[in-house]
Amino acid sequence: MNKLYVVGIGPGNYEEMTLRAIRTLEECQVIVGYTVYVDLIKSHFPDKEFITTSMRQEIERCRIAFSQADLGKKTAMICSGDSGIYGMSGLILEIGAEYPKVSVELVSGVTAALSGAALLGAPIMHDFAVISLSDLMTPWEQIEKRLEAAAKADFSICLYNPSSKKRADYLRRACDILLKYKNKDTPCGIAINIGRREEDSSLYTLEMLRDIQVDMFTTVFVGNSATKIINGKMVTPRGYKIK
Amino acid sequence: MNKLYVVGIGPGNYEEMTLRAIRTLEECQVIVGYTVYVDLIKSHFPDKEFITTSMRQEIERCRIAFSQADLGKKTAMICSGDSGIYGMSGLILEIGAEYPKVSVELVSGVTAALSGAALLGAPIMHDFAVISLSDLMTPWEQIEKRLEAAAKADFSICLYNPSSKKRADYLRRACDILLKYKNKDTPCGIAINIGRREEDSSLYTLEMLRDIQVDMFTTVFVGNSATKIINGKMVTPRGYKIK
Repeated sequence: MNKLYVVGIGPGNYEEMTLRAIRTLEECQVIVGYTVYVDLIKSHFPDKEFITTSMRQEIERCRIAFSQADLGKKTAMICSGDSGIYGMSGLILEIGAEYPKVSVELVSGVTAALSGAALLGAPIMHDFAVISLSDLMTPWEQIEKRLEAAAKADFSICLYNPSSKKRADYLRRACDILLKYKNKDTPCGIAINIGRREEDSSLYTLEMLRDIQVDMFTTVFVGNSATKIINGKMVTPRGYKIK
Repeated sequence: MNKLYVVGIGPGNYEEMTLRAIRTLEECQVIVGYTVYVDLIKSHFPDKEFITTSMRQEIERCRIAFSQADLGKKTAMICSGDSGIYGMSGLILEIGAEYPKVSVELVSGVTAALSGAALLGAPIMHDFAVISLSDLMTPWEQIEKRLEAAAKADFSICLYNPSSKKRADYLRRACDILLKYKNKDTPCGIAINIGRREEDSSLYTLEMLRDIQVDMFTTVFVGNSATKIINGKMVTPRGYKIK
């Protein structure tokens, strides 16, 4: 059976890949992915055939990967973070029906909610919601509804895709919704370029977060009502009684 | 500065650890953890000093880890999955103030929401909520409120700690709440003993899930209104228009 692997490469640095992801890529002949992600790992996997496509060409990228696998070449489609969280696993499985001779295997990776959290402290130690602010494929009303529900039920919240050139004010709009239910002093944090050269993180209050300009390489964390700052780290306690 | 690492070891098998987690454990002299997790990795790290404590001794476990680090021994506290998701990062940072000479570093791992999702397909490809059904430290009313909010706003949901001996009917109680807002045919899945010898997964409808008996090594996934079963896999589409 021809094999197509969907591999989450983690935040970006080689060290944060799982051993299984590394070994899978080592075994493959062809590695397909978005240009930026391929560039992150390329030097660690010499002698591979790399095929890159630009952003917004996800369906084409999947078909290229399947075609390569269909030719009998062991192929990997790579995603940043985890392949199953806003990654390519879903689309690959949806398109897979068209390629009955290719068997798909999914390989997990550390998604930005996890790697970003580790940079900031422990912001999502308890129940949390993950919401993408991109309205490319999701109506903004649906996103608003989820923000509202998550804030009302006191979830910690992790926001993916908090901004882009066309959506410069989306984080502000999201904060305004969260501020209806969460205290303005709720600890928040952002993680930027996790696992990459310009990695950075900062802490804010929810009120301050509203006025921060972020980009698409930023992951945003909003605490719950118990979240606090301890020694410069954002910590959402699980509820242990420390004596 | 004395070093204490909090390391997520992933679902259980060595291959699903990140390279950073492996290298960190290799560099440490002492590895502290819950007995079950230590047993999972022990054979891969010979010549280490292992210190285990049983369940519900989390605070004591943290103090043991800090004491070891305080003696100048490079120490790792291990957690299954990710250290920052229902793991030990939070408690370590809370207790850390008592040990000013120890510097804490957090190392991410693949949490069960990710590894379980990969077993089942792509159930949490879009916005999702992670909720623990354990009411040891969280009032059940708060858990109910979060289940209700997540269902109402059409999140995919991942449930941790869905059951234990004392809480045999909690998954049923949770399903009854979700059924108020989600269709009874909503695709659901469970992942059992992920990355371990008896790894298994099964698909259900939400109505069927209500009557399933699960244990504490099970992670439960509930789809959103768009989730479907494709070739035996649970897939929550992101919204790509496939032509």
